[in-house]
Amino acid sequence: MNIAVLGSGNGGCAVAFDCAACGHPVRLFDFERFPQNIQAVNEDGGIHCEGILDGFQPVGYAGHDIEIVLEGADIIYAVGPAYSTKPFAEACRSHLKKGQVVIVCPSSCGGAVEFKNGAGLDLRDEEVVVAETSTLPYAVRLFEPGKIKIFNKLKGGVFLASIPAKNTNTVLERVWDVYPAMSAAKNILQTSLQNGNPVIHPAITLMNVGLIERTQGDFEFYHQGVTPAVGRLVEAVDRERIAIGNELGVEVIPDPELGVIQGYMTEATYDNGFVTAPGFAGVKAQPRLDYRYFNEDVGYGLVFLQDLGKQAGVATPVISAVITMASVVMKRDYVAEAKRTMRTLGLSAYTAKELDSVLS
Amino acid sequence: MNIAVLGSGNGGCAVAFDCAACGHPVRLFDFERFPQNIQAVNEDGGIHCEGILDGFQPVGYAGHDIEIVLEGADIIYAVGPAYSTKPFAEACRSHLKKGQVVIVCPSSCGGAVEFKNGAGLDLRDEEVVVAETSTLPYAVRLFEPGKIKIFNKLKGGVFLASIPAKNTNTVLERVWDVYPAMSAAKNILQTSLQNGNPVIHPAITLMNVGLIERTQGDFEFYHQGVTPAVGRLVEAVDRERIAIGNELGVEVIPDPELGVIQGYMTEATYDNGFVTAPGFAGVKAQPRLDYRYFNEDVGYGLVFLQDLGKQAGVATPVISAVITMASVVMKRDYVAEAKRTMRTLGLSAYTAKELDSVLS
Repeated sequence: MNIAVLGSGNGGCAVAFDCAACGHPVRLFDFERFPQNIQAVNEDGGIHCEGILDGFQPVGYAGHDIEIVLEGADIIYAVGPAYSTKPFAEACRSHLKKGQVVIVCPSSCGGAVEFKNGAGLDLRDEEVVVAETSTLPYAVRLFEPGKIKIFNKLKGGVFLASIPAKNTNTVLERVWDVYPAMSAAKNILQTSLQNGNPVIHPAITLMNVGLIERTQGDFEFYHQGVTPAVGRLVEAVDRERIAIGNELGVEVIPDPELGVIQGYMTEATYDNGFVTAPGFAGVKAQPRLDYRYFNEDVGYGLVFLQDLGKQAGVATPVISAVITMASVVMKRDYVAEAKRTMRTLGLSAYTAKELDSVLS
Repeated sequence: MNIAVLGSGNGGCAVAFDCAACGHPVRLFDFERFPQNIQAVNEDGGIHCEGILDGFQPVGYAGHDIEIVLEGADIIYAVGPAYSTKPFAEACRSHLKKGQVVIVCPSSCGGAVEFKNGAGLDLRDEEVVVAETSTLPYAVRLFEPGKIKIFNKLKGGVFLASIPAKNTNTVLERVWDVYPAMSAAKNILQTSLQNGNPVIHPAITLMNVGLIERTQGDFEFYHQGVTPAVGRLVEAVDRERIAIGNELGVEVIPDPELGVIQGYMTEATYDNGFVTAPGFAGVKAQPRLDYRYFNEDVGYGLVFLQDLGKQAGVATPVISAVITMASVVMKRDYVAEAKRTMRTLGLSAYTAKELDSVLS
């Protein structure tokens, strides 16, 4: 199976390494403005990995030419933060071939729809199958250009859905050898809602703004930054997310329960669960507030959830309060920026019931 | 001038000491459930003070009998947190005499109206003149029962208004020798709005919830807890307060400017101003979140401001976000508790213009 990986960050390198380790020929793409890892992978002819996966795996091509990377690819992984999905999709536009499968990994929120829109594919087009995952299936860091350390490859709690959802199992079968723990979500709303980052990152950050800014993040984000009161805020955000899921006919696993399933945590609670999580040991706070914990997880994640809640008729006062406060702290108006909403995805006209059918 | 002081906490002891130091006979009251300072003042026959005021001053009576304390008093100071005003007023009910002046110190929010309601006095009754101050005119701590240390007696930026406001100057003349820095506010909305605690305490606390809970407040609340991002939240709350004032025809001095006038701060900015404030040096964070910075300054202060904003037609999204988040953190619903609102004060039926007239 020929694999194309778009995105040369930590996640992209992990997917590329893992696919190669399973015996697949891999090609790696990134834009010219991100040359560092591409160059390192090129020089070494592949990716070095430490941690629970380790060794060296070859990458057949690492470069900035999207046509070379897509040529003959059976699976195309678009791996990066929420704001990377659209540029990747636009780069693929008119180069995708019938029968190719695209996996936006992770979805963030509606990533598969964002990709289809950016690539000029109709929402229900099936010539190219586009899917998304609920999370990146790794805890991974780049420690040098082209060299990664994988701390965790998720043992469960990773969901995948294609749009339309009837092709989900076809995609799962195709990735089975690399991702046996991936399971089918009902539709892309479930994968989007199951993304835990908007639930945990902004709440914990807000409750520690003073310390993050004063120490430049020199403390353990989960083990020290989470206390019972902080946990209550995380839980309140999570409850609103779960309520949105209920209204949309989608089951959302509470974040700490998912954390246990994924192998990060050993106790499914909102406070002590994070404080004692082996998978979060040593994870420092962000060095500055201007970071993806706000810019992605509020700017995309919570703004999307608030919007989805409105469309589904679910009140989200706590999510709205978090957005308001993060906006003040960052001198931005995340709601007005509207980076990812049901409207920008082209889904704002549907009722909950209609969504169920249009995505199925 | 005979002085009655209701409230034997740090503020009450400071007022009693200062009035006695100016040569006035002073009597001190508190409820039986607060016996500690009353007993100490009784045993010593007065109050010991260190700091910028110092020495010993006699207190003629310290006890739990409200009639003895009110008998012949020319000025009655009700000194305590917001929740003390109503019990003090109810204790005074039917014991107040024509010509007596009551000063609720500080107002917190509408303290003079709360007192009149509790004491059974009509809003525009003038037989007993009831006034309120914008703040306690001291930075003071009790370091032992009956012994206080006064760090600062405010050099300015302390406002007083009576209800109706036409008697404000009469009251100011009566307290002039003890409080020469006190000046007239337009009405009790101005004294209430000028209370800075709801602007600074909840915002700084929220941005430091993790650290407060983890260290039990073992850091400097202002000098370490305030950073540029924290300052932006304080400023956003302050802007909404100032906007409410504008709509009600009342000028509100921005908090850092007031801090400079009062002698706490040397720089009128929302971040560095607090970090460098000589008057805030050594002020530790609260030992637990269940503290007046939320319970009084959100539960009374911000809930009142949000309500006043609604009545005046001023949007307060940031104040509302702070209330929502503090409620989640404290497992309480401060809005539903409605400890002090325009409705509980009996003022909810008036337009901004009518308020101006009914309070004047």
